[in-house]
Amino acid sequence: MKTKLILLAVASVAASQLCMAQTNQPMMKDFKPSSLNQPGQQYPQVNSQRYARFHIVAPQAQSVRVSLGLGGRGGTALTKAEDGSWTGTTEGPMDEGFHYYHLSVDGGTFNDPGTLNFYGSTRWESGIEIPAHDQDFYALKDVPHGQVQMVLFPSKFTNTIPVRTAFVYTPPDYDKDPAKRYPVLYLQHGWGENEYAWWNQGHANLIMDNLIAENKARPFIIVMTYGMTNEGMRPGGRRPGGLGGAATTNAVAANAASNAPARGSGGFPNFNVAGFETVLVDELIPYIDANFRTLADQPHRGMAGLSMGGMETHSITLKHLDTFSHIGLLSGGVISPADVTNTPSFKEKVKVVFCSCGSRENPGNINANHEALDQIGIKNTAYVSPDTAHEFQTWRRSLHEMAPLLFQD
Amino acid sequence: MKTKLILLAVASVAASQLCMAQTNQPMMKDFKPSSLNQPGQQYPQVNSQRYARFHIVAPQAQSVRVSLGLGGRGGTALTKAEDGSWTGTTEGPMDEGFHYYHLSVDGGTFNDPGTLNFYGSTRWESGIEIPAHDQDFYALKDVPHGQVQMVLFPSKFTNTIPVRTAFVYTPPDYDKDPAKRYPVLYLQHGWGENEYAWWNQGHANLIMDNLIAENKARPFIIVMTYGMTNEGMRPGGRRPGGLGGAATTNAVAANAASNAPARGSGGFPNFNVAGFETVLVDELIPYIDANFRTLADQPHRGMAGLSMGGMETHSITLKHLDTFSHIGLLSGGVISPADVTNTPSFKEKVKVVFCSCGSRENPGNINANHEALDQIGIKNTAYVSPDTAHEFQTWRRSLHEMAPLLFQD
Repeated sequence: MKTKLILLAVASVAASQLCMAQTNQPMMKDFKPSSLNQPGQQYPQVNSQRYARFHIVAPQAQSVRVSLGLGGRGGTALTKAEDGSWTGTTEGPMDEGFHYYHLSVDGGTFNDPGTLNFYGSTRWESGIEIPAHDQDFYALKDVPHGQVQMVLFPSKFTNTIPVRTAFVYTPPDYDKDPAKRYPVLYLQHGWGENEYAWWNQGHANLIMDNLIAENKARPFIIVMTYGMTNEGMRPGGRRPGGLGGAATTNAVAANAASNAPARGSGGFPNFNVAGFETVLVDELIPYIDANFRTLADQPHRGMAGLSMGGMETHSITLKHLDTFSHIGLLSGGVISPADVTNTPSFKEKVKVVFCSCGSRENPGNINANHEALDQIGIKNTAYVSPDTAHEFQTWRRSLHEMAPLLFQD
Repeated sequence: MKTKLILLAVASVAASQLCMAQTNQPMMKDFKPSSLNQPGQQYPQVNSQRYARFHIVAPQAQSVRVSLGLGGRGGTALTKAEDGSWTGTTEGPMDEGFHYYHLSVDGGTFNDPGTLNFYGSTRWESGIEIPAHDQDFYALKDVPHGQVQMVLFPSKFTNTIPVRTAFVYTPPDYDKDPAKRYPVLYLQHGWGENEYAWWNQGHANLIMDNLIAENKARPFIIVMTYGMTNEGMRPGGRRPGGLGGAATTNAVAANAASNAPARGSGGFPNFNVAGFETVLVDELIPYIDANFRTLADQPHRGMAGLSMGGMETHSITLKHLDTFSHIGLLSGGVISPADVTNTPSFKEKVKVVFCSCGSRENPGNINANHEALDQIGIKNTAYVSPDTAHEFQTWRRSLHEMAPLLFQD
């Protein structure tokens, strides 16, 4: 018996080492183009073990690096072949889901010409998609699809342009019954991102289409606009009406904090939310209620945001509980017991509190706060995304968990 | 008197030489960031004399070139400074309007990290905007704005995905009166572009907003979808729902012709339009008529396209005159007298024929055909964009000229 146990233990260690070896030696045979590649581009590639492989043509270059690497720490140096191309594979598996990245070519920063660009870190960067085990919930399926509309709404906040850009998701049945009205969720991106993030990187529209098709969420409108509005006009601003159109107002917030993982409810200490509050509450909400068939009252209006957008949500909703009844903070801090105490009528006015983050962020804080709110009688939900960090797979999953809770009156 | 004339002549020659010198030596003082730059980026820059200046950081690079140059012929080599940056100015003035371009860095092709990307030549490329003397007609103004919506419409043509992407412009008053119905223009991009081109590069929405505000065009719906559908799925396809979302079907058309200037009505001899015809006539039009408040009949439905999109318009409208009554070919050939003769009931069914091109293309062909159509009693409009080539300024102006003619019943 003892011998058997020892043998089992040895076998277990051997199996463990085998797994380690497999992890360090990605299978070469199942690399395939990332789903975010530009048309016809074979690279970058990803495989079933979550490794990423890059291939860049730059015959006279001295050095080519990719900003992605093992667990996101450091980058991956590519190696030059005789034909002048550079190839390299991440040292280890990547987290599932979407990652921003860029190239360093001879000391210059460029995007990978093989893949599409996504607005993050106040610029359009390269993106790669590591296939996730749960990608079905944001897959494009043969179900009724809602629409994502670009609207230009009048804004006096930015003096130099007359309008700002928002994207509005309307659920699949929106055009069927002209008498039907819908709740609205205002959904904000993170620092350095813009109003494209939630549908372009986040697939918010497909997440909702799939939930609605499965009758798991009430159909509601989602409004996504640019939230870094405290900085005035940037140099070289461009008009709305184009990709990155909201770049008219995309100046780098000089006093905005960095895109670091959320640090509890005080993650962005220097971010001044007042500008965005004005745009959202005084300009955008009246425009949406005037131009879409909304249920234009507090019980049917919510706000959620990721990272810096969570900070904005925290600040704006607590100041405007006559406007919002649903609050979602995704990797953007928590609604704390002190927040409840300090906010008159919180318990009566707030219907949903949802806080989430990735397991590689600060799940302990999220979970502890969940219990603390429970103890003072505030019904709330905490969600921790498994094996993800401060990235979009956390936020896709968070929306998927949060949406079924919203507007269930 | 004779002396005076001679002096005048000398002065004239001197002035002429002075102008030449000015042309070759762009004023340095009024360079400013291109309107298409990414947020906060100072380069590329443009000046009032239509020169473009580029600035790239790549300290260890051996060679940096920009694909744009004098009159579009050849590129511009950048020169390295001691700080590791590379700078260069075009040898001459550029044509007004939008231009695609890319960098060559040590033999590799990259986008300029300073500017936004635009889908052309089957990839997202860098874009620069040379301010045009007539840019007011596509400027963002304080007028009522229509919306650009992304719709996912069911398509059986592409077996591997259930839906395709289209963008739909609805005019400013679309949501005001739920009983009002609108004509529809199906508006196609050129080879290597996609369904983003007309609103992103072309500002079709702003052109219409401004025309409608001035009461110069009847409000109508514009539908823009991906027209290179004869090629099946590309490797590494991605789902709709993201930028370049229609890239699901963006495979490079292996048998599509090059993006050369239009060559009369036979510009794309190898392009097989049948696939797109199926998508447009059998799938997209029924979807639009079912989901938007259209005037769903032949007198209120038109089709226009630029370059390859003009070829598609030519082929599809002449085969489907029970579906379309308005035809616009922008740098995409002409409706010839032979076309009229060979198409039963052309004269009775077609209400508008509009053909255009840039003055640097083949204006003689456009103008001669205009007269030939007049002579056989086919009312038609020809438009030649001054001092532009096979580029978007030609097509912006063409839409601006064509839109007031449409649906004037």
